[in-house]
Amino acid sequence: MSSMPLCAAHHPMPDFNGDAIAQYMRTDFITLPDHLSVNGAREYFVSQLTTDDIPGQVFVVAGKALRGVLSIKRLLQEKDTSLNINHLTDSCLFHVKPDDERAQVVAELAEREVDLVAVVERGELVGCLMEKEIAHLQEDDVTEDVQLQGATLPLEKPYLEISPWTLWKKRSVWLLLLFVAEAYTSSVLQHFEEALESAIALAFFIPLLIGTGGNSGTQITSTLVRSMALGEVRLRDMGRVIRKEVSTSLLIALTLGLAGCLRAWMMGIGMEITLIVSLTLVCITLWSAVVSSVIPMVLKRIGIDPAVVSAPFIATLIDGTGLIIYFKIAQHFLGLN
Amino acid sequence: MSSMPLCAAHHPMPDFNGDAIAQYMRTDFITLPDHLSVNGAREYFVSQLTTDDIPGQVFVVAGKALRGVLSIKRLLQEKDTSLNINHLTDSCLFHVKPDDERAQVVAELAEREVDLVAVVERGELVGCLMEKEIAHLQEDDVTEDVQLQGATLPLEKPYLEISPWTLWKKRSVWLLLLFVAEAYTSSVLQHFEEALESAIALAFFIPLLIGTGGNSGTQITSTLVRSMALGEVRLRDMGRVIRKEVSTSLLIALTLGLAGCLRAWMMGIGMEITLIVSLTLVCITLWSAVVSSVIPMVLKRIGIDPAVVSAPFIATLIDGTGLIIYFKIAQHFLGLN
Repeated sequence: MSSMPLCAAHHPMPDFNGDAIAQYMRTDFITLPDHLSVNGAREYFVSQLTTDDIPGQVFVVAGKALRGVLSIKRLLQEKDTSLNINHLTDSCLFHVKPDDERAQVVAELAEREVDLVAVVERGELVGCLMEKEIAHLQEDDVTEDVQLQGATLPLEKPYLEISPWTLWKKRSVWLLLLFVAEAYTSSVLQHFEEALESAIALAFFIPLLIGTGGNSGTQITSTLVRSMALGEVRLRDMGRVIRKEVSTSLLIALTLGLAGCLRAWMMGIGMEITLIVSLTLVCITLWSAVVSSVIPMVLKRIGIDPAVVSAPFIATLIDGTGLIIYFKIAQHFLGLN
Repeated sequence: MSSMPLCAAHHPMPDFNGDAIAQYMRTDFITLPDHLSVNGAREYFVSQLTTDDIPGQVFVVAGKALRGVLSIKRLLQEKDTSLNINHLTDSCLFHVKPDDERAQVVAELAEREVDLVAVVERGELVGCLMEKEIAHLQEDDVTEDVQLQGATLPLEKPYLEISPWTLWKKRSVWLLLLFVAEAYTSSVLQHFEEALESAIALAFFIPLLIGTGGNSGTQITSTLVRSMALGEVRLRDMGRVIRKEVSTSLLIALTLGLAGCLRAWMMGIGMEITLIVSLTLVCITLWSAVVSSVIPMVLKRIGIDPAVVSAPFIATLIDGTGLIIYFKIAQHFLGLN
């Protein structure tokens, strides 16, 4: 070989934010200069292998500029060993920038089958993502979603290394927000004080009714958020999703209405309350289904990660609105107002 | 080459259950017979490549029996091309059976760095898991965890292909279980009817108090369950986890107690109820922290997937016990019983 082929050096990591691709890319990968022959490229490639990971494709460069991608299978199987590798090189299709956001790149990768992603900055190849890095990106994305689903801010370090002080800061933000949102349930109940006083038995079913509404909503959002993350459900499927969820929740509403009827009858609290509780269960389940299937899609539409729609989020939303449904039905059947 | 090297054939898939490794393993991989020389093995290996995925290691076999694993890097870099590949082969360390459960294999893989897993049945190599298959296993495991966290039975098909009827079956099981568990909140409230009647304002704070207890517990379990799935937290860390969570929840309890004080004062419902609400918030938060950090670890200990501890599960558990805490405190301060 007449000139030294280029092998990307270990660049110092710039101080990007924790979600930037620069944090994930590798800089120690093999590149082949575009003037090599098949034979020269083979020899160079084999000599550069340092681990058991054999890349399926390598970048072909001219100086630091990315020229394309060469399949190692093609390189090893080519019969004409004096051919210039330019003739075997494909121009590279998918590349990202070092300061691209992780979530955005994960979403783009979900839509195509890619094993190798070039990281390019101002026309220069500065790094790449191979299968391991892509898997790492996706794993961190899932972890962040799980933390959002638990209504806590994402943790940057392994759990055992985090101090109670940091955990408190991460958690109290969401807890206080949910507390403030949930606080209006007190105002709702205060507003219906008269109904409560005239039939104290109404209070007995408050946790059961709002809990069940929250649970049936959580089932929907968790399935939907995951399906959206996997790319199984897209925004254009919104109509199908809502139709499916409303049909399902009709079945579920009838099941739960029956269960509520049975429960109220077991407690022996009279026909009227039994009727109110059962009817409320049906209405809350349907209401919860509509809210829980629409909200993740609306959030996605306006560019917010639907993973923020956690069980606590849905529960808080259903608690207050569910109480209004409950007491409106109660007022009607008890002949109040 | 004097004899035909073995390339594993496409075995017909046996009808294992959906979680068996047999569903994931590939059967179209390259194997090298153990009598080949370095040169013979190289030629054979290159001729067998069909896709751009270049395996980093291949299996060496004698007949159908697994002899070991050969690093392709070693094969390509070896200078002595007439050497028998037996001299370069490592005996294979980690292998699984085709009817092993997915969750068990994922847990075992989390504890080691493995890129290639042999699937062996009665001493014969029947398949393998490469990086893609391992990633696929892990992805399905996460999806199942997410579905458990949403308190629904795992779905076997993409969301849009599932009928409302199937969704109803998958969801109503958990919903009814949670409904039955939550139903005892009605009995708790009925038991404390006297306290409720003497101070109806106590009812106003029921959703806020139990909701907040559920939320703070959910934050803990979702972080913990994920850390356990990633292998960051193990059973022997139980003491550290509980200490960390109790310290954190002391800080959170004080924060929420203060918030509750403010909220009750804003509603103008008197000193006594304000005190009862704030104190209950402190107690429920601490109680919730203990329950939520112990339960996932106890479940893991007795061999149950801790991912079943979903937000609805924690909420249901805290709802009833939280109400008992609330009314016991109320009875004490209101001088009842």
